[in-house]
Amino acid sequence: MAAIDGQAGQDVIDALAGIAPDFATYLFEFPFGDIYSRPGLSLRDREIATIAALAAMGTAQPQLKVHVTAGLNVGLTQAEITEILMQMAVYAGFPAALNGLFAAKEVFAERAAATAQDGA
Amino acid sequence: MAAIDGQAGQDVIDALAGIAPDFATYLFEFPFGDIYSRPGLSLRDREIATIAALAAMGTAQPQLKVHVTAGLNVGLTQAEITEILMQMAVYAGFPAALNGLFAAKEVFAERAAATAQDGA
Amino acid sequence: MAAIDGQAGQDVIDALAGIAPDFATYLFEFPFGDIYSRPGLSLRDREIATIAALAAMGTAQPQLKVHVTAGLNVGLTQAEITEILMQMAVYAGFPAALNGLFAAKEVFAERAAATAQDGA
Amino acid sequence: MAAIDGQAGQDVIDALAGIAPDFATYLFEFPFGDIYSRPGLSLRDREIATIAALAAMGTAQPQLKVHVTAGLNVGLTQAEITEILMQMAVYAGFPAALNGLFAAKEVFAERAAATAQDGA
Amino acid sequence: MAAIDGQAGQDVIDALAGIAPDFATYLFEFPFGDIYSRPGLSLRDREIATIAALAAMGTAQPQLKVHVTAGLNVGLTQAEITEILMQMAVYAGFPAALNGLFAAKEVFAERAAATAQDGA
Amino acid sequence: MAAIDGQAGQDVIDALAGIAPDFATYLFEFPFGDIYSRPGLSLRDREIATIAALAAMGTAQPQLKVHVTAGLNVGLTQAEITEILMQMAVYAGFPAALNGLFAAKEVFAERAAATAQDGA
Repeated sequence: MAAIDGQAGQDVIDALAGIAPDFATYLFEFPFGDIYSRPGLSLRDREIATIAALAAMGTAQPQLKVHVTAGLNVGLTQAEITEILMQMAVYAGFPAALNGLFAAKEVFAERAAATAQDGA
Repeated sequence: MAAIDGQAGQDVIDALAGIAPDFATYLFEFPFGDIYSRPGLSLRDREIATIAALAAMGTAQPQLKVHVTAGLNVGLTQAEITEILMQMAVYAGFPAALNGLFAAKEVFAERAAATAQDGA
Repeated sequence: MAAIDGQAGQDVIDALAGIAPDFATYLFEFPFGDIYSRPGLSLRDREIATIAALAAMGTAQPQLKVHVTAGLNVGLTQAEITEILMQMAVYAGFPAALNGLFAAKEVFAERAAATAQDGA
Repeated sequence: MAAIDGQAGQDVIDALAGIAPDFATYLFEFPFGDIYSRPGLSLRDREIATIAALAAMGTAQPQLKVHVTAGLNVGLTQAEITEILMQMAVYAGFPAALNGLFAAKEVFAERAAATAQDGA
Repeated sequence: MAAIDGQAGQDVIDALAGIAPDFATYLFEFPFGDIYSRPGLSLRDREIATIAALAAMGTAQPQLKVHVTAGLNVGLTQAEITEILMQMAVYAGFPAALNGLFAAKEVFAERAAATAQDGA
Repeated sequence: MAAIDGQAGQDVIDALAGIAPDFATYLFEFPFGDIYSRPGLSLRDREIATIAALAAMGTAQPQLKVHVTAGLNVGLTQAEITEILMQMAVYAGFPAALNGLFAAKEVFAERAAATAQDGA
């Protein structure tokens, strides 16, 4: 989970500590322990699926941002993520695609700012 | 479009003829002419995104079946499609994953029956 | 309500009799007694809004068919209803538009068959 | 799980055998092993929550029917389930409530038929 | 309505005054006058259903916060509300559960702060 | 597009420039070039449909605000838009209607402030 989600995953676990600490355990066990660790699909392919699903649903912007980061961490490029999000216009409508693109734009900008700071 | 959707795509166009023939044109132009033909993402990756999105939304079972077929046509295996659909339990709930898996099971069975018939 | 929904509205009330007869009363009171009877928007405009909403949501195909009929009853043409449904591709995706168009196509065909029978 | 879902749960597991047998394991482990077995909420209360959620979402009619049965198995009455479903009109709209009520009506009728047969 | 929603209900009515004062009347009449006042289900059970539905839909965070408060007002504990929200991961996915839990966490913190202030 | 959306449309195009400039082209071509320019339905009727759909979906508040503005630009009154949004309570639930009304209230207030400033 650390490899995929990095700091964002840790932030979710920390936030759960005050209300539902067991739920952090479930977040490890089922999604990561059971699903993402299965050998039949690469992590890159899994993140394509997750980014598409979250953008299409349109009800999970915080989680979409976490998975845009996760997608970059497992090898998707910014251009590929942008393609996935644009494609969602076909299946979930232009608002879903636009809101997904703007969420991704925020993540890309945060990473650029962090990189600039690291290099300063 | 023929390469991706095959007979299922043609069936949709035929069904539109009696009510909204222009809409069949739009179905070509925007999704296929504009989006799927873009070079930045492979057709295989695009079908991962579409299958995930349609299963997560849960409101487009006929289109999900078309794209399970399309996914197989562009190189996804039955096992990979099954992985994508199981993964949707994490993001859209177990019912979305189950309904997606049962839609895929129907497509797989129809193709097995067609193959058996071709080989008879 | 009879003027708008005709037989379809009566069918819903009959179906509720066996499980939740009070709910049929609520169906009259709030949607029809409170909302549709308000003077600020014509019944034709109200049915445009309802057809669009139900098609975009994608979870209410039986009710969408009732309101395609209701739209025709209050003055929308088949061509106008088709335009509304095609437009939903922009906001809710092509599957929502397609499933809406196919629901409308069924209603149009049923009415054509009923008219043909009446005229025989 | 047998105590809650009975035959319907077994049918789902059987249907998964041909496509995703591991998913049947996950269906046990997370929902039943992790969630339903937690002591903080009665099974009756949990089924109120599930019936409400599935009816409000409107994308999981087969699972809603399974949980109407499950609700009856853990002590909800038909009248209470009807109340829950009517209430969904407030939060998810009248179509969601109507489609939920009609799903419940089917379950109630199937059980009445089964009981009549057992008693014959 | 005052007993269930308290200040939050009044805030909604005040906010409606500037745009749709009649809608405040409907908010009383149908949900409270017609549904919540029915004898067949306790207010505690009704709030379980509403909290579950709003969290599963994921499109009504302000209303979910109102009903977390309402649930506490009619006898649900913070631990029970947390259980309901965790359970939504099964039916609507982990993001829906997480976003519901974080909304509840905000309500719990606001009440703790208010109680601390009252006791000062 | 300028006639319908005005500044809001331009803002979306500007925001896309940094991430997906081609998507701004698609936003013109399909929704505006293909759909809104069709002769079969007036722009006023098209905006009724769009406002209803976006409010019912509940996942596109920024786009709903753009289309409340667009509706006013093509001849809908504030009172008519309020009627459309109240009506959504019937089909998508009271939260969808409330969140739509509050989005419209913001747009109405912004326009009143802009008009007051222009007249100062």
